[in-house]
Amino acid sequence: MAADPPAPSAFELAQRQGDEAIRTSLLDAASRLLAAEGPQALALRRIAGEAGCSTTVLYRMFGGKNGLIEALYIEGFERFRRRLAAVPRDPDPREHVRELGRAYRAGALADRNYYGLMFGAPIPGFAPGEEARATAMSTYAILEDAVAACAAAGLLIDASPRAIAAAFWAEVHGFVSLELNGHLADPDAVLDTLMAGVSSGFFSTPRE
Amino acid sequence: MAADPPAPSAFELAQRQGDEAIRTSLLDAASRLLAAEGPQALALRRIAGEAGCSTTVLYRMFGGKNGLIEALYIEGFERFRRRLAAVPRDPDPREHVRELGRAYRAGALADRNYYGLMFGAPIPGFAPGEEARATAMSTYAILEDAVAACAAAGLLIDASPRAIAAAFWAEVHGFVSLELNGHLADPDAVLDTLMAGVSSGFFSTPRE
Repeated sequence: MAADPPAPSAFELAQRQGDEAIRTSLLDAASRLLAAEGPQALALRRIAGEAGCSTTVLYRMFGGKNGLIEALYIEGFERFRRRLAAVPRDPDPREHVRELGRAYRAGALADRNYYGLMFGAPIPGFAPGEEARATAMSTYAILEDAVAACAAAGLLIDASPRAIAAAFWAEVHGFVSLELNGHLADPDAVLDTLMAGVSSGFFSTPRE
Repeated sequence: MAADPPAPSAFELAQRQGDEAIRTSLLDAASRLLAAEGPQALALRRIAGEAGCSTTVLYRMFGGKNGLIEALYIEGFERFRRRLAAVPRDPDPREHVRELGRAYRAGALADRNYYGLMFGAPIPGFAPGEEARATAMSTYAILEDAVAACAAAGLLIDASPRAIAAAFWAEVHGFVSLELNGHLADPDAVLDTLMAGVSSGFFSTPRE
């Protein structure tokens, strides 16, 4: 058996923490620029200026512009995944689905610069790579599992759980997009209505 | 009483028709460039090159770049408004709402380059002017009126018709955005599920 590698020294740990903090602040600067000014602002020189470092740091950490954009996708999905995974299971699996919807909104509002990158198409011609796609899929799996739990409990209408998960995603994504772009006068009322509609639909039976 | 202005000559009519056709082809070229390459492609020289005319034509028709972008918004909303207004009233006001949802999707797919402009925020810092906003609002009023007709018939759940209209918009907008960005494996199934959920919600009552 090979010996365990030596534990990292306090200096190495601090260095890693420092690298992580630098990495996050560079990604945050890049996502802010992208959201505020569009893809042409995503020049390494510009990001470096914004973050107060040299472009050498960006090359060292991300290997260049494409690597940086890929890292932006991964960071965005990773934050989103952690947030959905942190939603506690509710004894009622329907309530769990609704809580995931609310956590989705909170995540989008907290990381709005990343949200547009992940689900819009702000960088024409750029498609995220394998690691970003895998993180995205493991995020989506949290919702699919929650809907499957409703199906297992006999709580779904007669439609495929996969289509219901996608339809629920479409609802919450649409709500979040309209809210982020300032199109909703009273977002809280719209979200409440949306969540009420998830259970009952929007239509009652006709008055007799 | 003032005399009627003289009827336009055949030459004037043809000239107007020609202007209209040129205007539309310039706007289509611009919206295509915007969707394919992002806002930095919206340079007058670039659009003129794409459309095969001189920048002088663009200045004459739109007064410059901001006027062109404003015209893009108006054109997009105007097409959308015509499409929703063309949906025939159904005797069942709920079916009318669902038909508006389907027409909304068809419009977004047919004019996808305009759709992203209208409801995303692809040109950082640009806000549409009064005429574009008025056209957008008269488009949205078609949906609000249809939901209000459901309310008048006693067909809504206990929530404000305004919030229900906005929630329905969020659903369809979210669906369309995910479909346009290629995120849905089976869009038709998702739309059917969404429309089924509008009536009944996604959840049935528990099995006994």
